Amino acid sequence: MYVIMDLSGLGERKLVERLLGFVDDWYSSSEDAAAIQIGGITLVFSSDMLVARTDVPPGMTWKQVGWKVVVMNLSDLAAKGAEPIGGLYAFGLPKWFKVNDALEIASGIKEASNFYGARYLGGDVNESDEVVVSGAVLGVTEKFVPRGGAKPGEVVAVTGPFGLTAAGLKILLEGLESGSEKDRCLKTVYQPEPRIREGVTLAKGGYASSCIDSSDGLAASLHELAKASKVGFAIDNVPIPPEVLVFAQRNGLDPYELALYGGEEYELVATIPEAKWEDAVKAVEKVGGSLHRIGRVIQENEVKFKHPEEGWVKISWKGYEHFTS
Amino acid sequence: MYVIMDLSGLGERKLVERLLGFVDDWYSSSEDAAAIQIGGITLVFSSDMLVARTDVPPGMTWKQVGWKVVVMNLSDLAAKGAEPIGGLYAFGLPKWFKVNDALEIASGIKEASNFYGARYLGGDVNESDEVVVSGAVLGVTEKFVPRGGAKPGEVVAVTGPFGLTAAGLKILLEGLESGSEKDRCLKTVYQPEPRIREGVTLAKGGYASSCIDSSDGLAASLHELAKASKVGFAIDNVPIPPEVLVFAQRNGLDPYELALYGGEEYELVATIPEAKWEDAVKAVEKVGGSLHRIGRVIQENEVKFKHPEEGWVKISWKGYEHFTS
Repeated sequence: MYVIMDLSGLGERKLVERLLGFVDDWYSSSEDAAAIQIGGITLVFSSDMLVARTDVPPGMTWKQVGWKVVVMNLSDLAAKGAEPIGGLYAFGLPKWFKVNDALEIASGIKEASNFYGARYLGGDVNESDEVVVSGAVLGVTEKFVPRGGAKPGEVVAVTGPFGLTAAGLKILLEGLESGSEKDRCLKTVYQPEPRIREGVTLAKGGYASSCIDSSDGLAASLHELAKASKVGFAIDNVPIPPEVLVFAQRNGLDPYELALYGGEEYELVATIPEAKWEDAVKAVEKVGGSLHRIGRVIQENEVKFKHPEEGWVKISWKGYEHFTS
Repeated sequence: MYVIMDLSGLGERKLVERLLGFVDDWYSSSEDAAAIQIGGITLVFSSDMLVARTDVPPGMTWKQVGWKVVVMNLSDLAAKGAEPIGGLYAFGLPKWFKVNDALEIASGIKEASNFYGARYLGGDVNESDEVVVSGAVLGVTEKFVPRGGAKPGEVVAVTGPFGLTAAGLKILLEGLESGSEKDRCLKTVYQPEPRIREGVTLAKGGYASSCIDSSDGLAASLHELAKASKVGFAIDNVPIPPEVLVFAQRNGLDPYELALYGGEEYELVATIPEAKWEDAVKAVEKVGGSLHRIGRVIQENEVKFKHPEEGWVKISWKGYEHFTS
């Protein structure tokens, strides 16, 4: 029997896998970004589309939408260790959309681009049913950091804490209760930041053997790295801010669930050989960032987490997935 | 009184003008493509979004949709004289969309990219209300051909005939009558071709002083070139295929209206100094293309056309415009 399947039956991850079958293997086709070697330099080229219905939470201003689409795009460059050059942003906007709101998006794109050392190079304008802003960015790197370079025994590190965005989205989308922790949780939702200096530093110094951004959630990012590197991870220490602990307790949630399966966070997840760890920490601190050791690369193909109460548990490959979520 | 205006009150062209106020002036911000000088080479970077409701006519297959988004994007590179390197294509697809149709789009993107010497480098997948495919392409050029370089006295040339797409769209969208001319008209709608070899040849040989593609229609393209170059054009000879003449007569239409205001054609419109004209024609023919002289650059800021029956008439700045059309 031949079944015609729609995307809700397949899910985003499996669709991406099948689409990758068509992609030309230039350098590495399973990355979020393509690497292009030309004239002795390595360009990193990446695209990310913002669709209002899934990427714009209630209360976000149109200028913040402009910032967010830049962050989404530059974060992929950061993970590959690339310094941003500039980006193009194509708009799909409804007829009823306000002119001033369109200009606010553009002004956010320009501010965010320039803030992170990139240029807003232009784009395209189209009519559509819903607000869509599709970015494409170009960067340059001395060393492209792949997903597939992690080796057993290396340190697994992240550039910041987890769980704030998950808490913020639960406040905004599910109406969960919050108190003094609310402000910080919402700030990470409305004003995400890409870890460009950290990514460039990890690449330039030759510290990172593999890297990915955590925009699909920490759990999914660890699984992607593990799969590409053919290794596993034993995670025993995820940095969770006090605001997330307070929010979790207030609502009877497990803070580790928030930290692992949240998504929409733009931290980097990298693996670093033990011998380079101290230098890497110093180098990242020197550019104003921080590195947190969260675990170790292991040989077995599994991603596990030492829960403080439940002991070692498997981290499942879940996170936000288009079409089925 | 302060009026909140929506996009249907402003129109695409004026919105683009206002958005360009935010774009960083890297090399030339009023182009369809950005030029980036790096490591001694000039990269050309362009993006174009396909939205099904306006860019996919009835009867087009999903594989043809994949080809079309590649053509839309590569055509902008061709106009700047750039050889394509590769492209990223971000998908916005509804939940109900068929998996096989998504794969057909990807297979069209791959086929078209490879056919024109480009690579399909990846992209992004999102859930949206309607089908959107946003492309971003990168090329390399020895000489970036601007919009603003036309000089009075030069030849105005195009790389092919006009009017077939307008006729084809009238058959498909308005149900106008057609006979033996139908096949060729529909073929240009379903299988558009970018003029890459022609554009690269015009740039490499230093023949073209300015160039644009005609995707917004011949009239709009001439106006864009005239405005950027601060000149005008006197057009006296637009190549119109016999099929368009037959279709126009059958339906009581002016074939020149179809040729000038059609849109969705991917020919190049270029200006070439008289002294280089013959060499330019030979060079373009050598790569399998053709150049047609359609008029001359004039000093006055007007775009006029010598209609065979009505004499000199002004070509108005119209063509398909999002939000108001």
